[in-house]
Amino acid sequence: MKRVVCFGEIMMRLNPKGYMRFIQAKAFEASYACAEANVAVSLANYGLDSAYVTKVPAHEIGQSAVNELRRYGVDTSGIVRGGKRLGIYFLEKGASQRASKVIYDREGSAIAQAEPGEFNWNKLLSNADWFHTTGITPAISDNVARLTIEAVKAAKKLGITVSCDLNYRSTLWSKDKAKEVMTEVCKYVDICITNQEQAVDVFGIQVANTNGTKNGLDYEGCVSAAKLLSEKFNFKKAAFTLRGSISASDNRLSGMIYDGDEAFFAPEYTAHIVDRVGGGDAFSAGIIFSLLKGYDNQRTVNFSVAASCLKHSVEHDFGLVSVAEVEALASGDTSGRVQR
Amino acid sequence: MKRVVCFGEIMMRLNPKGYMRFIQAKAFEASYACAEANVAVSLANYGLDSAYVTKVPAHEIGQSAVNELRRYGVDTSGIVRGGKRLGIYFLEKGASQRASKVIYDREGSAIAQAEPGEFNWNKLLSNADWFHTTGITPAISDNVARLTIEAVKAAKKLGITVSCDLNYRSTLWSKDKAKEVMTEVCKYVDICITNQEQAVDVFGIQVANTNGTKNGLDYEGCVSAAKLLSEKFNFKKAAFTLRGSISASDNRLSGMIYDGDEAFFAPEYTAHIVDRVGGGDAFSAGIIFSLLKGYDNQRTVNFSVAASCLKHSVEHDFGLVSVAEVEALASGDTSGRVQR
Amino acid sequence: MKRVVCFGEIMMRLNPKGYMRFIQAKAFEASYACAEANVAVSLANYGLDSAYVTKVPAHEIGQSAVNELRRYGVDTSGIVRGGKRLGIYFLEKGASQRASKVIYDREGSAIAQAEPGEFNWNKLLSNADWFHTTGITPAISDNVARLTIEAVKAAKKLGITVSCDLNYRSTLWSKDKAKEVMTEVCKYVDICITNQEQAVDVFGIQVANTNGTKNGLDYEGCVSAAKLLSEKFNFKKAAFTLRGSISASDNRLSGMIYDGDEAFFAPEYTAHIVDRVGGGDAFSAGIIFSLLKGYDNQRTVNFSVAASCLKHSVEHDFGLVSVAEVEALASGDTSGRVQR
Amino acid sequence: MKRVVCFGEIMMRLNPKGYMRFIQAKAFEASYACAEANVAVSLANYGLDSAYVTKVPAHEIGQSAVNELRRYGVDTSGIVRGGKRLGIYFLEKGASQRASKVIYDREGSAIAQAEPGEFNWNKLLSNADWFHTTGITPAISDNVARLTIEAVKAAKKLGITVSCDLNYRSTLWSKDKAKEVMTEVCKYVDICITNQEQAVDVFGIQVANTNGTKNGLDYEGCVSAAKLLSEKFNFKKAAFTLRGSISASDNRLSGMIYDGDEAFFAPEYTAHIVDRVGGGDAFSAGIIFSLLKGYDNQRTVNFSVAASCLKHSVEHDFGLVSVAEVEALASGDTSGRVQR
Amino acid sequence: MKRVVCFGEIMMRLNPKGYMRFIQAKAFEASYACAEANVAVSLANYGLDSAYVTKVPAHEIGQSAVNELRRYGVDTSGIVRGGKRLGIYFLEKGASQRASKVIYDREGSAIAQAEPGEFNWNKLLSNADWFHTTGITPAISDNVARLTIEAVKAAKKLGITVSCDLNYRSTLWSKDKAKEVMTEVCKYVDICITNQEQAVDVFGIQVANTNGTKNGLDYEGCVSAAKLLSEKFNFKKAAFTLRGSISASDNRLSGMIYDGDEAFFAPEYTAHIVDRVGGGDAFSAGIIFSLLKGYDNQRTVNFSVAASCLKHSVEHDFGLVSVAEVEALASGDTSGRVQR
Amino acid sequence: MKRVVCFGEIMMRLNPKGYMRFIQAKAFEASYACAEANVAVSLANYGLDSAYVTKVPAHEIGQSAVNELRRYGVDTSGIVRGGKRLGIYFLEKGASQRASKVIYDREGSAIAQAEPGEFNWNKLLSNADWFHTTGITPAISDNVARLTIEAVKAAKKLGITVSCDLNYRSTLWSKDKAKEVMTEVCKYVDICITNQEQAVDVFGIQVANTNGTKNGLDYEGCVSAAKLLSEKFNFKKAAFTLRGSISASDNRLSGMIYDGDEAFFAPEYTAHIVDRVGGGDAFSAGIIFSLLKGYDNQRTVNFSVAASCLKHSVEHDFGLVSVAEVEALASGDTSGRVQR
Repeated sequence: MKRVVCFGEIMMRLNPKGYMRFIQAKAFEASYACAEANVAVSLANYGLDSAYVTKVPAHEIGQSAVNELRRYGVDTSGIVRGGKRLGIYFLEKGASQRASKVIYDREGSAIAQAEPGEFNWNKLLSNADWFHTTGITPAISDNVARLTIEAVKAAKKLGITVSCDLNYRSTLWSKDKAKEVMTEVCKYVDICITNQEQAVDVFGIQVANTNGTKNGLDYEGCVSAAKLLSEKFNFKKAAFTLRGSISASDNRLSGMIYDGDEAFFAPEYTAHIVDRVGGGDAFSAGIIFSLLKGYDNQRTVNFSVAASCLKHSVEHDFGLVSVAEVEALASGDTSGRVQR
Repeated sequence: MKRVVCFGEIMMRLNPKGYMRFIQAKAFEASYACAEANVAVSLANYGLDSAYVTKVPAHEIGQSAVNELRRYGVDTSGIVRGGKRLGIYFLEKGASQRASKVIYDREGSAIAQAEPGEFNWNKLLSNADWFHTTGITPAISDNVARLTIEAVKAAKKLGITVSCDLNYRSTLWSKDKAKEVMTEVCKYVDICITNQEQAVDVFGIQVANTNGTKNGLDYEGCVSAAKLLSEKFNFKKAAFTLRGSISASDNRLSGMIYDGDEAFFAPEYTAHIVDRVGGGDAFSAGIIFSLLKGYDNQRTVNFSVAASCLKHSVEHDFGLVSVAEVEALASGDTSGRVQR
Repeated sequence: MKRVVCFGEIMMRLNPKGYMRFIQAKAFEASYACAEANVAVSLANYGLDSAYVTKVPAHEIGQSAVNELRRYGVDTSGIVRGGKRLGIYFLEKGASQRASKVIYDREGSAIAQAEPGEFNWNKLLSNADWFHTTGITPAISDNVARLTIEAVKAAKKLGITVSCDLNYRSTLWSKDKAKEVMTEVCKYVDICITNQEQAVDVFGIQVANTNGTKNGLDYEGCVSAAKLLSEKFNFKKAAFTLRGSISASDNRLSGMIYDGDEAFFAPEYTAHIVDRVGGGDAFSAGIIFSLLKGYDNQRTVNFSVAASCLKHSVEHDFGLVSVAEVEALASGDTSGRVQR
Repeated sequence: MKRVVCFGEIMMRLNPKGYMRFIQAKAFEASYACAEANVAVSLANYGLDSAYVTKVPAHEIGQSAVNELRRYGVDTSGIVRGGKRLGIYFLEKGASQRASKVIYDREGSAIAQAEPGEFNWNKLLSNADWFHTTGITPAISDNVARLTIEAVKAAKKLGITVSCDLNYRSTLWSKDKAKEVMTEVCKYVDICITNQEQAVDVFGIQVANTNGTKNGLDYEGCVSAAKLLSEKFNFKKAAFTLRGSISASDNRLSGMIYDGDEAFFAPEYTAHIVDRVGGGDAFSAGIIFSLLKGYDNQRTVNFSVAASCLKHSVEHDFGLVSVAEVEALASGDTSGRVQR
Repeated sequence: MKRVVCFGEIMMRLNPKGYMRFIQAKAFEASYACAEANVAVSLANYGLDSAYVTKVPAHEIGQSAVNELRRYGVDTSGIVRGGKRLGIYFLEKGASQRASKVIYDREGSAIAQAEPGEFNWNKLLSNADWFHTTGITPAISDNVARLTIEAVKAAKKLGITVSCDLNYRSTLWSKDKAKEVMTEVCKYVDICITNQEQAVDVFGIQVANTNGTKNGLDYEGCVSAAKLLSEKFNFKKAAFTLRGSISASDNRLSGMIYDGDEAFFAPEYTAHIVDRVGGGDAFSAGIIFSLLKGYDNQRTVNFSVAASCLKHSVEHDFGLVSVAEVEALASGDTSGRVQR
Repeated sequence: MKRVVCFGEIMMRLNPKGYMRFIQAKAFEASYACAEANVAVSLANYGLDSAYVTKVPAHEIGQSAVNELRRYGVDTSGIVRGGKRLGIYFLEKGASQRASKVIYDREGSAIAQAEPGEFNWNKLLSNADWFHTTGITPAISDNVARLTIEAVKAAKKLGITVSCDLNYRSTLWSKDKAKEVMTEVCKYVDICITNQEQAVDVFGIQVANTNGTKNGLDYEGCVSAAKLLSEKFNFKKAAFTLRGSISASDNRLSGMIYDGDEAFFAPEYTAHIVDRVGGGDAFSAGIIFSLLKGYDNQRTVNFSVAASCLKHSVEHDFGLVSVAEVEALASGDTSGRVQR
């Protein structure tokens, strides 16, 4: 069984029930999530040997985050205990023209204050076939930026495939800082996962027709951006999501994988959204799973976009859908007919 | 007041709240349902004298099933007590491209282990104007198949109209077994309710353009199938549902009634789905109610499809809509404007 | 800070959770609402000095209504205590073709039985810049009709701008009675808020192409009706909502403001509905806020329709959206993309 | 099977979840209850043929009250439809030293405005063996007082046993009015159910050591009061509850039956309270059931107090415990050990 | 109306429903609380003009805290907006021998990082009759310690009565630091509220028989400690709570007030606990209310302990009981009988 | 780290919320439990290497059971997949004199139909230090009885300590059958865990003063029974629970360990019960943990009874308390004071 190690934060997600706004909430659903953790859970769910590396405080709230990962089969033996708090993110679900809203309360988290020496990467990555992280992780703090670079370097040295989702978060760092750190990180990355907007935000990869914020999906722009990015960093593959936001309730979705030579696009789906968060992470997990399984590029992108599309119908961040469900959609059955 | 007797199982339905998946569920909503029970409740709700015949265990879970039928006005005096367990079905609601999922846990249920002698059909059917069952009931067990045949024979002898929804369930029996038993059952049936797919599954009634699994509704194919079926079994009428599954969230719906001579189609609706289960049963109840009321074929199918459409907006299996609400939709008001 | 005083009832709203029907409900969500109270909360939420005048019983249920207004920053110091009960309205949310349903249980409420002398309008309106009420308030009882006329007269005398939403409720009074009382009220009104249907119901303002109950929005008819109304009562401005009910789940929305000379229309939105109630009140609040801010007609109607559209995505009656959110939609961003 | 007809109101009960106070509540649990309805449900639950007579409005809230009675097996065919509203009572559960609190919102209810001619007592009481009502019913309105007297007269004429729980409610009528009406009602009563405090409130039956409001239970006073009452009205039996309120969480309970000659007391229980309301009604149902079953006085009072004690452990008003459970407690097993 | 200004933090409280442990929780009830805020709400609830001073972040979570205070009538106009986060405290309710558990997540809160200049005490305290804070506030950070000293000095200068609850929290500061800062704060305090254990923790006021952690309440020790404290700081009055923890479900409670001359004790109650937190704050509010009302010492301590006892029956931190309810208990009615 | 392997069933537990009775329930809380699984979770929670062996169906409900074990750190790699259903048990919580009630729906479960060959005991038990099962497991079916005997034989051969809780369930098998099978099982048992009642039920170990079903705890009888049992089977130790059921809400608890020579009793606790189920399993886990840690007999029984006592305050079956919490209670702190 292939082993994938993901590295990032794990936060408590607190969202009001249903479509209640923050200021109406008298209770919050609590789940545990973060971009890389979402990927780890998807991979465990697909049957891979999936491990997560992070740091959580040594109290019951920290333990609950670990438990949620264990529940879905993620190996949590590499999680360090200590520090003061678990980061929190408050999420208010949008609907129709009202956008979903995130309030981050993640400063001072256990991982943000972790020191470089706390993670023994050689040990953590032994037996691993793949290492995954995202641009959110080095953005957490200077310490974690250093940790991330340590990790990708170690992975590279061990001959492990490295993937990274650029995932720019303007609330965590500036574009200049992002560019500086991510340029260093990307030196060790084999598979880059991103979208046009992030390519612009992080590396200023501007192409003619970028209009990712509108309903129209910019297929050509994706290819151009992937080419520029891949040349710049010598990525083996670049995988892009395409998203057209019709409203907070309905999105058009597709994706592309570019192998330095040719671009492969998945079919386009219109997703009626149950939970918007984690769609990109489900795509990343699809890419990692497919490539580890040896799928060809077309099957890889088809699987990944189908997985991402299905994620939008699942509550909370984790992409809790089975390989069979993803394959069924990828093979063209969009009917959602009752399975008895 | 016309009296209708329905015969079948009654199960506990357990579904996670909202769109939670099974593996996320920490609680289940509990309701009580089964194809024929759903019909019985709709008919009681429409004001008919509706009775249900089944067997439930003599404990509180069995009593709760009886209570739910009583709550909606169904006569439960013919329900036998005994046996070991109440069948259960777990339902996970689908959304968008993710299908709804049913896990049956109904083996060994009280009704499945009922012995033929336990039901006194002559007494149970005295004063009845109509008897209804579905292809699910004889599929439960050999015993229940025998009971079903006893029942339709008794009904026929008493001059009671018999309706049957073919309702093939592949998890309960094979197509061969279904064909064998249903061929016997259908000898005593006056009104057959089904759709193209089931006609194929049970009786191999294949027509040229069957594409019921796709979005397109196959109007012509329905007429052909109804003709073949009606000729084969000498049904007085055959009523078909048509369903085009755009996704788990949206379905296109219509229906047809064929009187051996002419086919009548209802208008087509696009239903935004709150709860997918029970849509066909609401159609059956519409057919029975309309024919007992003496509606003509067009009004019958219009009422039945409108009832089925509205069912999709109601939580749980029961078609809890009023005659007035169905009539309003059948008469063309699809606006859903607030009624103050 | 501009001060607005709204006058009307405050009721307890009881709705089953989610899409449960009344007869399925084992619990109700409780909130507090009424047309004018909804406006008052929106205005407080937009940062105005917003006060509410009503009467509630001197027990904990009455106090809870006051508390809900205070929670959102409404000045409740002018609320009279006494009387026997708080009015209640039961709301069942519709979906798809199934309409939302309201059962009023408001007879004998504290405000309905209030005596004219109980409100000192000169004191209540001192320092106010704007007074708002709706056609629901005088419809509550003869006493309240007298109170309403007292109020608008006092406001007029104090030089306060008066707005009124015609808001005809057939369950509260006849069209004849409505016409008689509202004719008197409208003498003192500066800004009339309504739609085509209400203009017909209350004043018989019939124009050629009124088809507000269908999907199509009747833009021309609005202008004609606004002209006729404005001439009749010498309104400074008349603001109309336009609504096309595709189903209980989706509505098309627009609006118009007419200044006696020219009509200005907002862009049209298709709202996917979370909660249908309070959409008109959010429009009224938008009009009042915009005019107090000195927005021009186009910006006023754009803001008001955007506010109304967003309200449909918010649970319960109150239009709990921020000025920034409304402005974002009014300026064209309908994408509902996650805000981090 | 013995048939009992109960007559009274049926209200919606709205209580915040758990121990939330009214002013904290964002949702209410909805159930349906009233003193006589609670008795009717207990009797149906014990297997008697139990019918309820009342009037409810012809809308879904009224229907929901009927449905709840049907759910537990009560014959609702004698319920009249019409009138404007269903009475409501808000209940806040007390705990420890904080008392439970009831806010009545029952004015103008369908039954309160029922006219004497609306109930055909001879038909409603045909085949009945027992008629039960309480002092709350004639207190609802003058109309209902007349209806109650009509009912007990008709019952008497038909030779049906009549029981009445005095149940004085100071919020509904004065002591003088209660005395006047109840004196008339009690002429037709065979079995009087009450406690010392009510005997004082309604008929001024004062005895030396009445201290029912304290923890101590006044056994001797009960006997004296029962004697005086029975002599005054020639009751066949008088049954008294004894309650010592240690706190809102714990009560001491006992009961007595007096047959004009001798008094029989049940053992005393200390109930840890889950839901305080309906304890007296469970006692009444115990008395009616026991006497219809032909139990002797000692067994009657033991059964009734055990039923009342167990009711305090059941949520909402209805005494949903089985005969077997009551018998087990009455026979001395207070251990509450798990039954597997 | 007397005006009281309280100063402290306001946190979000997150507790699992019922008795669920942290590691079982899938949802949290959210409320807003802090020692001084609890006092402010009680005082507003008793009808005083109660204002709260704190700092909250300028986002919806901060606004929700403000809204909760407004809901219960607290003047929030003096609350400063800004900073990064709202402090959080996680609470797990204990039961029986299992203790309640608090996990603080309050570092880096808006108030903790407030700068001295941000609060204009002369303006905030103008028109105030009383200023209240606790030992938790200066423990938050050095900045807030400075702010607290500024505040009590300003209050003293303005001739406002100052009360302080010593409230030592070992997770916030050391005993040495507490002693140093509180010695400075207490120079300006008129009314000191505390218990024996805190008197030891903060000032080392050790007396012979201190056994506050056991079931037995140490009445004599309280008097000795109060005497020592009052002499040391020249307090006008010292009020002590006494608590005997039988288990997490049941506590024995009493209290004392000492006026420099004589000690007055309240009766002792055994509280069955619904929510343990806020009991001491309810006592403080009782003291402030009683003294502002001019109650004598005995009535003051009786009122305050009754208020504290009743708080234990109310969910969440706020002491939401009315003056009438407190007076009823203080006057001896511990029966918790239903109030209709 | 010591490794313990537990063998048994894993069922879905469905209980109505709070104190709702089965026939009131509209929803069930779902958890996963069984006597041996409860032990396994406690041991994992105490930090041991705890593994569970069972069989579950290969669908999402089966997976959910596995996930719940994983969540709390149990090694589930030895769980076999297949079979038709997961056993279910319905639990209704009792209160006061009303007993808790269990309805088993476990027939035909995956484990019940498992074949002996399906478990490779030598592999499953390799590296284990302890094997634990209970008398419930062989009672499930003849197949499982054979499997159990296979398991204890294999364990014995491997030199692993074997413990067994007699745990007689009359709904699963007769006393004669139990005696026959358990006599065989006990040949391989080192540590026997039971109580007086079970010792009678399974082996007819009758001693003079057995009165375990009453409030009084029979200390002497325990010693006699332990002696007889230990002599009969040559147990190394016999551990007994003592329980006095004051009511469903309050139980008196103690325990004993007998080493063939001397008996050691723990202090007695009165537990206010949050959830009654799993108390005995928590005791068993305490015994296993303590003996593996090398605690002496007194500390072992003290720890085990404290763990059992605390379990009664935790919702659902699992004994989710920490070693530190157990030690604190075992060392005498019963106060349940808030831990901040």
